[in-house]
Amino acid sequence: MPEGISVSEIAGRLGGEVEGDGDVLITGLSALREAGPGDLSFVVSAKFAADAAATQATAVLVSPEWDKPCSAIMIRVKNPDEAFTSITPAFAPPPVERKPGIHPSAVLAPDVECGPDVHIGPHCVVDSGARIGARSVLMAGCYVGQGVELGEEVMLYPHVSVREYSRIGNRVLIHDGTVVGSDGFGYVVDDKGVRTKVPQVGIVEIGNDVEIGANVTIDRARFGKTRIGNGVKIDNLVQIAHNVVLGDHAVVVAQVGISGSTEVGPHAILAGQAGIAGHLKIGAGAVVLAQSGVWKDVESKTQVFGYPALPQRQAMSLQRAYMKLPRLQQKIAALEQRLKEIEDTHGA
Amino acid sequence: MPEGISVSEIAGRLGGEVEGDGDVLITGLSALREAGPGDLSFVVSAKFAADAAATQATAVLVSPEWDKPCSAIMIRVKNPDEAFTSITPAFAPPPVERKPGIHPSAVLAPDVECGPDVHIGPHCVVDSGARIGARSVLMAGCYVGQGVELGEEVMLYPHVSVREYSRIGNRVLIHDGTVVGSDGFGYVVDDKGVRTKVPQVGIVEIGNDVEIGANVTIDRARFGKTRIGNGVKIDNLVQIAHNVVLGDHAVVVAQVGISGSTEVGPHAILAGQAGIAGHLKIGAGAVVLAQSGVWKDVESKTQVFGYPALPQRQAMSLQRAYMKLPRLQQKIAALEQRLKEIEDTHGA
Amino acid sequence: MPEGISVSEIAGRLGGEVEGDGDVLITGLSALREAGPGDLSFVVSAKFAADAAATQATAVLVSPEWDKPCSAIMIRVKNPDEAFTSITPAFAPPPVERKPGIHPSAVLAPDVECGPDVHIGPHCVVDSGARIGARSVLMAGCYVGQGVELGEEVMLYPHVSVREYSRIGNRVLIHDGTVVGSDGFGYVVDDKGVRTKVPQVGIVEIGNDVEIGANVTIDRARFGKTRIGNGVKIDNLVQIAHNVVLGDHAVVVAQVGISGSTEVGPHAILAGQAGIAGHLKIGAGAVVLAQSGVWKDVESKTQVFGYPALPQRQAMSLQRAYMKLPRLQQKIAALEQRLKEIEDTHGA
Repeated sequence: MPEGISVSEIAGRLGGEVEGDGDVLITGLSALREAGPGDLSFVVSAKFAADAAATQATAVLVSPEWDKPCSAIMIRVKNPDEAFTSITPAFAPPPVERKPGIHPSAVLAPDVECGPDVHIGPHCVVDSGARIGARSVLMAGCYVGQGVELGEEVMLYPHVSVREYSRIGNRVLIHDGTVVGSDGFGYVVDDKGVRTKVPQVGIVEIGNDVEIGANVTIDRARFGKTRIGNGVKIDNLVQIAHNVVLGDHAVVVAQVGISGSTEVGPHAILAGQAGIAGHLKIGAGAVVLAQSGVWKDVESKTQVFGYPALPQRQAMSLQRAYMKLPRLQQKIAALEQRLKEIEDTHGA
Repeated sequence: MPEGISVSEIAGRLGGEVEGDGDVLITGLSALREAGPGDLSFVVSAKFAADAAATQATAVLVSPEWDKPCSAIMIRVKNPDEAFTSITPAFAPPPVERKPGIHPSAVLAPDVECGPDVHIGPHCVVDSGARIGARSVLMAGCYVGQGVELGEEVMLYPHVSVREYSRIGNRVLIHDGTVVGSDGFGYVVDDKGVRTKVPQVGIVEIGNDVEIGANVTIDRARFGKTRIGNGVKIDNLVQIAHNVVLGDHAVVVAQVGISGSTEVGPHAILAGQAGIAGHLKIGAGAVVLAQSGVWKDVESKTQVFGYPALPQRQAMSLQRAYMKLPRLQQKIAALEQRLKEIEDTHGA
Repeated sequence: MPEGISVSEIAGRLGGEVEGDGDVLITGLSALREAGPGDLSFVVSAKFAADAAATQATAVLVSPEWDKPCSAIMIRVKNPDEAFTSITPAFAPPPVERKPGIHPSAVLAPDVECGPDVHIGPHCVVDSGARIGARSVLMAGCYVGQGVELGEEVMLYPHVSVREYSRIGNRVLIHDGTVVGSDGFGYVVDDKGVRTKVPQVGIVEIGNDVEIGANVTIDRARFGKTRIGNGVKIDNLVQIAHNVVLGDHAVVVAQVGISGSTEVGPHAILAGQAGIAGHLKIGAGAVVLAQSGVWKDVESKTQVFGYPALPQRQAMSLQRAYMKLPRLQQKIAALEQRLKEIEDTHGA
């Protein structure tokens, strides 16, 4: 982390324009509301005008059109959000370096194949027949099972478990404690209600450029593959059951659960805590809103929510009607009263 | 994995009858929709007739009565689903062998007792007074706490943590990253809203033939036992709070949460993401449907769903009524209009 | 665990009064319903009179006013629940001792600083620049990342992962498998729907006297801090996204998910499986009931529930109306019929 970077220097790196004192040093980054002296912040739209006016940030990235009160020093840039992201690394603490090499406490089967410049951290265990691609990193305490294939530049954070025969592509990041390839949940029930395990002999296959959060669980297929497509992003504590297919670039937010054999189309988004029943198809580009319960197929490019999940327009109309239920009850009572008066007066 | 098994050979093993060329080699297993050349698949009912007609599978297991278009080769068997399951191991990759022995990197307290043919993998830690039954397997990085008792043929997948004094029966499978015996969530609150921990000195007791998924959490009792009955099956990412009792052969699907001291009857099924409040009784054989929120006792052999969870018939009738809410609003508006016309014409 | 403690001895320790034979030995603790001979139990209110009458407990703690049937021996104490908690440790199994020292299998970077009387268990890994305060305990297989600061008397149960630069206060307990400081879930999407990771360079900061359950995930900030205040209690399998702020003494029950940048006020309570959208403010002392979905700010000291979460009174009134929906439909049908009769008789 640097001692500080001048406002002018930051503006230069971002191709922005300084308004105010460019010599002032920036020492940290912060959101508008939490910012203090020395901090650089950013504002994305007029919606945050109150925060901008009240911010304690020393300098703020604003758009060329910004015309509201803000900090004494501003840097005008085309896209303040992206610009802020691009300057972030300059203020980050030193990255964690993982030098090539195998820690002496790691336990590797004799036939494990490692590509060049692999890092295998302390207390890792890699079982027989596993292959680890070039420049991949296994941090402390990871487990890589028999016959697993890891691509190049894979990053396994501490305590990740990749079970036997799973295949993982290139540039895949998996955060701490995640389990890839545990058995699917499948049983045969006898007439006394006693369950016998159905063998789960398939695998998990993960494409390239995937990121998977912490403490996620992805079950191996009953047979064949549970498949995570290229570019998929999975948040923390997500459950992916056996034989699920996630299309390329799908997004699965925290605590979502996807039941067995469901296919999620490319670019679909499943928001937080949503639950998807088994054997369904979620179309390409579909969006399932947070906490929804999906019991039927979802068409491509549609947005659904609720329990059961319905197309957004219908769901919202139902929700609005629900909010007016007490009013509806009153209306009906009033109608009954008025009708009774007519009946009493005129006879039925 | 074999090079391939002929259709006749498979039919022979399954006691089935071949229609088509029995000499063709089968090299893999797959669902109807994902199957390709060389694959064997199966079809359970006419519901999947379209998939059967379109399948690329080389051969398909069908019932004796099947009369719809399917692959060129069919094997007729009494129960295609079960037959498929029984042939699955023939196409599985070689199983992971865990030879008896204690890996030199494992750390065992001097007084740990191990039965015959136990496998303790690399980097396991077993604390003082623990006992591990015959033929049990601890895969890499497992933790077994002070005074824990594991039965015979227990399988702990990597990174399982079994905390002090837990007792686990025979033939129990616990998947990666699961925690058995963490402290229950209990505090005394003072008048300033500051919480002091209530000691959690009970244990977790798990019966025989239980399977527990990955990254599950089962809390120890405040006192006495959190008890998981015989034959219980628990899916991934489930939360079981202190003093919960799960009756024999209960089934708990992924991401379910059960609050403290609730008793779940034998053979009850809690579907995915359901939440059960504390101090309740879920009757024997009851079914709680997915994502339901249970706030009251559930009677034996009933099925409930919704939030709050209600008996299925009532819940469905409410849900149907809910879906018609906008129509209800229109009806009321029409009634109001008609009534107004009468009032205007005849006087109120 | 003692052989047994006499009823008189227990009464003496609790400042209570014995009714019945004080010489009888108590050998265990149990809830009323599960208690057997030798057990001490307690009853908190007349609500449990049936359990009290039926209990098999040898002795029961009751209030001074208790006048219902119960076990043959009773100990009258002011607060039976608290008294029971205070006697609990007397019947607990011997606690797990963690003697000061660093296990030889632990891997510490040369520049790690440890305070006095630290315990670092087998197979722990502590990276460069980390500091561990006096009397802190790292149980088996914990990972403490580069530059992490742990306060005094911190307890990390097995397999906890504390990622780089996290700061943890004093007397913090973190249960097995929990991950502190994994990357936040943030991406930039291009016009083809391909996501690029937004660097997550902030940290997690945890105050004093915090307890965190098992398999919890707490993401590091995009920049700045994800902050967990003093005295906060977090249950199992909770998800806390980047830049969330939990105020002092907040309580987060199992399986709750809190989305990015949301601020939870001091003493707020989020009940089980609730989901909170991003960038919200949950006021001080607010209560979000179980499974609720919160989409808007929640005012201080209010209680909300439902999906979407609404103030308790409104939510309950809506729920009551919902339960009457089929009745409402019938009423409308009856009105329509009566109106039709009037129209037919009198002309419209």
